[in-house]
Amino acid sequence: MIHEDTAKELSLHVGNRVLIEKGKKKIISIVDTVDGFVHKNQIAVSDAIRRKLRLKTNDSVDVEVVKRPLSIKLIKKKLEGHRLEKKEIYEIIENIANNSLTEVEIAFFVSAVYSEGMNMTETKNLTEAMVYHGNELKLKGKIFDKHCIGGVAGNRTTPIVTSICAAAGLKMPKTSSRAITSAAGTADVIETISRVDFSILDIKKIVQKTGGCFVWGGSLGLAPTDDKIIKIERIVNIDSQSQLLASILSKKISVGSKYILIDIPYGKSAKVSKKEAKKLKKAFLKISKMFNLNLKVLLTDGSEPIGDGVGPVLEMQDIIDVLSRKKHIKDLEEKSLKLAAELLRLGGKKPTLAKKLLDSGKAYEKFLEIIKAQKGDIKRLKKLKPKFTYNVKLKKTRKIKHMDNKLINRLARRAGCPEDKAAGIYIHKKKGQILEKNQPVITIQTTSKEKMKHAKTFFKKHEKRIITYS
Amino acid sequence: MIHEDTAKELSLHVGNRVLIEKGKKKIISIVDTVDGFVHKNQIAVSDAIRRKLRLKTNDSVDVEVVKRPLSIKLIKKKLEGHRLEKKEIYEIIENIANNSLTEVEIAFFVSAVYSEGMNMTETKNLTEAMVYHGNELKLKGKIFDKHCIGGVAGNRTTPIVTSICAAAGLKMPKTSSRAITSAAGTADVIETISRVDFSILDIKKIVQKTGGCFVWGGSLGLAPTDDKIIKIERIVNIDSQSQLLASILSKKISVGSKYILIDIPYGKSAKVSKKEAKKLKKAFLKISKMFNLNLKVLLTDGSEPIGDGVGPVLEMQDIIDVLSRKKHIKDLEEKSLKLAAELLRLGGKKPTLAKKLLDSGKAYEKFLEIIKAQKGDIKRLKKLKPKFTYNVKLKKTRKIKHMDNKLINRLARRAGCPEDKAAGIYIHKKKGQILEKNQPVITIQTTSKEKMKHAKTFFKKHEKRIITYS
Repeated sequence: MIHEDTAKELSLHVGNRVLIEKGKKKIISIVDTVDGFVHKNQIAVSDAIRRKLRLKTNDSVDVEVVKRPLSIKLIKKKLEGHRLEKKEIYEIIENIANNSLTEVEIAFFVSAVYSEGMNMTETKNLTEAMVYHGNELKLKGKIFDKHCIGGVAGNRTTPIVTSICAAAGLKMPKTSSRAITSAAGTADVIETISRVDFSILDIKKIVQKTGGCFVWGGSLGLAPTDDKIIKIERIVNIDSQSQLLASILSKKISVGSKYILIDIPYGKSAKVSKKEAKKLKKAFLKISKMFNLNLKVLLTDGSEPIGDGVGPVLEMQDIIDVLSRKKHIKDLEEKSLKLAAELLRLGGKKPTLAKKLLDSGKAYEKFLEIIKAQKGDIKRLKKLKPKFTYNVKLKKTRKIKHMDNKLINRLARRAGCPEDKAAGIYIHKKKGQILEKNQPVITIQTTSKEKMKHAKTFFKKHEKRIITYS
Repeated sequence: MIHEDTAKELSLHVGNRVLIEKGKKKIISIVDTVDGFVHKNQIAVSDAIRRKLRLKTNDSVDVEVVKRPLSIKLIKKKLEGHRLEKKEIYEIIENIANNSLTEVEIAFFVSAVYSEGMNMTETKNLTEAMVYHGNELKLKGKIFDKHCIGGVAGNRTTPIVTSICAAAGLKMPKTSSRAITSAAGTADVIETISRVDFSILDIKKIVQKTGGCFVWGGSLGLAPTDDKIIKIERIVNIDSQSQLLASILSKKISVGSKYILIDIPYGKSAKVSKKEAKKLKKAFLKISKMFNLNLKVLLTDGSEPIGDGVGPVLEMQDIIDVLSRKKHIKDLEEKSLKLAAELLRLGGKKPTLAKKLLDSGKAYEKFLEIIKAQKGDIKRLKKLKPKFTYNVKLKKTRKIKHMDNKLINRLARRAGCPEDKAAGIYIHKKKGQILEKNQPVITIQTTSKEKMKHAKTFFKKHEKRIITYS
């Protein structure tokens, strides 16, 4: 933001692209003109720019007009339905990486890819370009990884699977995301008992010591351009298949994974239908061959929530219950074992080892070892207690027919998830089970009185769609 | 822009949509956080917002979070290839009009319409919605108008055509644009001798008095949402057919025109090919029926520049030369007469009247009358003289084969067009003519030494493509 007169002097117009330099640090930004609080020859910048250039009040910076990047022509080319060459995709991703493209221009790119699609070669190049413009984790040996496309409430298999695989001797530097629209992401769940924001160097140490880790991928800069693209996609809530593939695989390739298991839950109230899941599986297998990855795709039932808890603390409790064998949570345990068995098979081990490591307590030991290496402690979980709980009951005995994943997630978010770690939904009864009259089917919990009000209002409004009875 | 702490207190995040209110004036804007020059409980706004809300330093405003507008879902619907209902298009245009959509969201809309297209009913609704959310000029009687889709260097027919038609008694409240990528728009050209920014009320008076006007459409707010959409389209330089139709027709409908002539120049170095021109003609005729317009489309030869001058002053000189019969500029005169004849035909008059009014000096009288009503004076033209001129010559005698419209326009802009009114290109010889050795083919002119350097550099770089010889 500069003064109107300064803009005139420099022949700058609102919307012009300028390079702001402070010593060796540079950033490209867009001009706006202001009046009053910015004087002549002064520049005001957003917090984001201030941080990147490490600016203090009254610092001097160099400002220079920069040309329209070539990428804009390439984005237009894609908008017109043409294929992009390798160097053209690299050019666009480089321009996104160095901030040369505005959000409006990235929106045109996202939209063009969504409408016109990318073939497998373009998708491969997109993936590689995103890896090229990000950090890489370089570990020795075979690296294993898993990824779930999401959409199922609860379903916190990652820490269980990673613990089993690491206990079996597989190297699994697991990076996870925070919740976007769901109640909790794996990073939000782990954070109830441990730090999750580590540097690449930290992760190397943790994995070399324990064989695994449970960390947040967001701070590592593995594919920072992907993060920028996702931010724009979320505005209109679209996700093209090529962008989805590139987004997932770029992060796996950046951590050096060669053995990858992809979990695609499908079904009613899941992210994708069975048909879409099959199509996606095919695309995953096709692109994985181009990268010489040992990639396996599992289509799993994603029509109902998995696990008893939905929300950071509740999901962590489920994980500990399954690993410590204190409580039997059938769906979560079975699914985790299935995924772990597949990864073990990819690693040349017997799939039956998964159940053995879980039953013997070795997986739980490994879990505690990793948490300790991350300077965490499961005792912290007890301190995170909800202040308000509300039991949903029925006056008649009924059989549960369906519980909606999307609505359960939204209900949990109304209760305060994921910021409020103790917030969430405890599921007492599931599909096919009999709910006795005056017994709770779910419990809503939160630490905020106001959030409880919001959650109850939401529940009342969508009651008939959240849980259906036969 | 607010302080980070204020953002936290209000649970606001960067990118959130807020309503800023000052008395009865409101505007929707997007949150950014800053530090240093904005203190707690302070808000800093851009010049554009300050003007709209008429804010002074230290004024208090109300800030309130607003919901994601429904339009975003509708934009996604179009992105997915579905048709939009009338009320859905009105919703989007209303949200653009009241600033509820960010530029990124408008970019998704523009891109969706470009990729997925709109059928004629959608295009009609888009046009109507843009008219509904803009100002209207209400004049009595039959209103005539012309529009050229542009792309031809020089080609300043509008003032000549308008003068002839007004002299014939047709009512023609002509609104024009400024140059976007060309050397000059009609508004830039008229501005060499007269004001062009008038209010709707001013225009009414001028037209009631003289029958015509030559004004800039930009300040009238005839279809302000179209202006916002065009701003976004220009970023990637795309223009969907439906948006083009809606853009042109909304402005014609807003000034009350029922008799409209559309000029579509086609050919080598023009905006469109003959095939595209034919397709566009068909679309214009189709939509004009939906609005009950008496619309005629002319496909004209747009492969070479028209007129002797390219640039505000040079084009105005051409207009005066043609109207005053002082000099014969064949291509400009013939094309202007052709267009004027068609408009006269639409008005139930004899097409031959056009030539008569030009030859008798009645058209020139009308031109001077309109300029006087706009408080202008053709004497001002003499004061706008270039300081530097450069003649392009050849050492051999050659026949001219082609002069490129796009490159001639770009060359004129390097010389300072359209801001530098005296800048431009004077064309001595055209296609088919013999250029004697050491005689100038074009003269580059400007008032800035530096711009002359830029123009010469540009000419040398593209010499072989700007003018070709047989």
